[in-house]
Amino acid sequence: MRFAILLLCLALPGSVLVWQLPAFADSPLAYPEGYRNWVHVKSTLVSPAHKDFAAIGGFQHMYANPQAMLGYRTRAFPEGSVIVFDWLEMKDKDGAFAEGARRQVDVMVKDSQRFEKTGGWGFQRFAKDSKTELAATPTPQQCFACHDKLKKDGMVLSSYRQ
Amino acid sequence: MRFAILLLCLALPGSVLVWQLPAFADSPLAYPEGYRNWVHVKSTLVSPAHKDFAAIGGFQHMYANPQAMLGYRTRAFPEGSVIVFDWLEMKDKDGAFAEGARRQVDVMVKDSQRFEKTGGWGFQRFAKDSKTELAATPTPQQCFACHDKLKKDGMVLSSYRQ
Repeated sequence: MRFAILLLCLALPGSVLVWQLPAFADSPLAYPEGYRNWVHVKSTLVSPAHKDFAAIGGFQHMYANPQAMLGYRTRAFPEGSVIVFDWLEMKDKDGAFAEGARRQVDVMVKDSQRFEKTGGWGFQRFAKDSKTELAATPTPQQCFACHDKLKKDGMVLSSYRQ
Repeated sequence: MRFAILLLCLALPGSVLVWQLPAFADSPLAYPEGYRNWVHVKSTLVSPAHKDFAAIGGFQHMYANPQAMLGYRTRAFPEGSVIVFDWLEMKDKDGAFAEGARRQVDVMVKDSQRFEKTGGWGFQRFAKDSKTELAATPTPQQCFACHDKLKKDGMVLSSYRQ
């Protein structure tokens, strides 16, 4: 009987398997594979003149998958929306700044069922260029504490820059 | 007879019409519609500490269409490659920089037949947010003078940042 169930599982499409084995809210988010091919939403930069330069200096680029791009237009982010906040260090050459090494990759994913307790969004920080190493802080709860103040904007701080 | 030719033209696919009415090398390039959905290649920033800040200060974002993305991998840019260099002013808040108004949009298009005299690439600068207003300088010849020094890199200065 067990063997029959195993065979049945193997024969099912991936999406059904996922449904059978639901991810728990506190299990890590998946790395956002392919996000560098997504739409570039906007950028900011923390320069050497900023008080927190040592900790967060450099470029911050935001990317959105197609569902999140719909959300930027309507501020109602549909299920499956993924937004990436890509942190890069910077190199300064006489006031001209170039991109440096990756500091971290922050991800937020809209899944209302899985993340019911954090406004329908899951949060995760990946360390440097790693697809598996997670940063200890901020915790998803810390992310949520700030994003929860942005309810009227669908809990997303950024806007799409034309 | 003329009416028959007109009908024939209208019935032909667009690409054939383009072939029948070739664009001249010195006619303006088309505005790169939809480039904000293309892959974000990399960014640079000219900060207030740079000597040329007044003229070129702010963010520079590069975007590439699918053909140009193939070129970034091989440094042999195929016909139809389009690269956009998007210049934005910046706003400084205590050393944290945000994107401002658009300065200009620089475009380079690979079309070896049309732009035979400038290494197979056409160049154009669009003023601010306009899709039709062209900047007087740099001229395509001025663009070519610098890009011609980059032959080993397919005449493209930038590289794709992972």
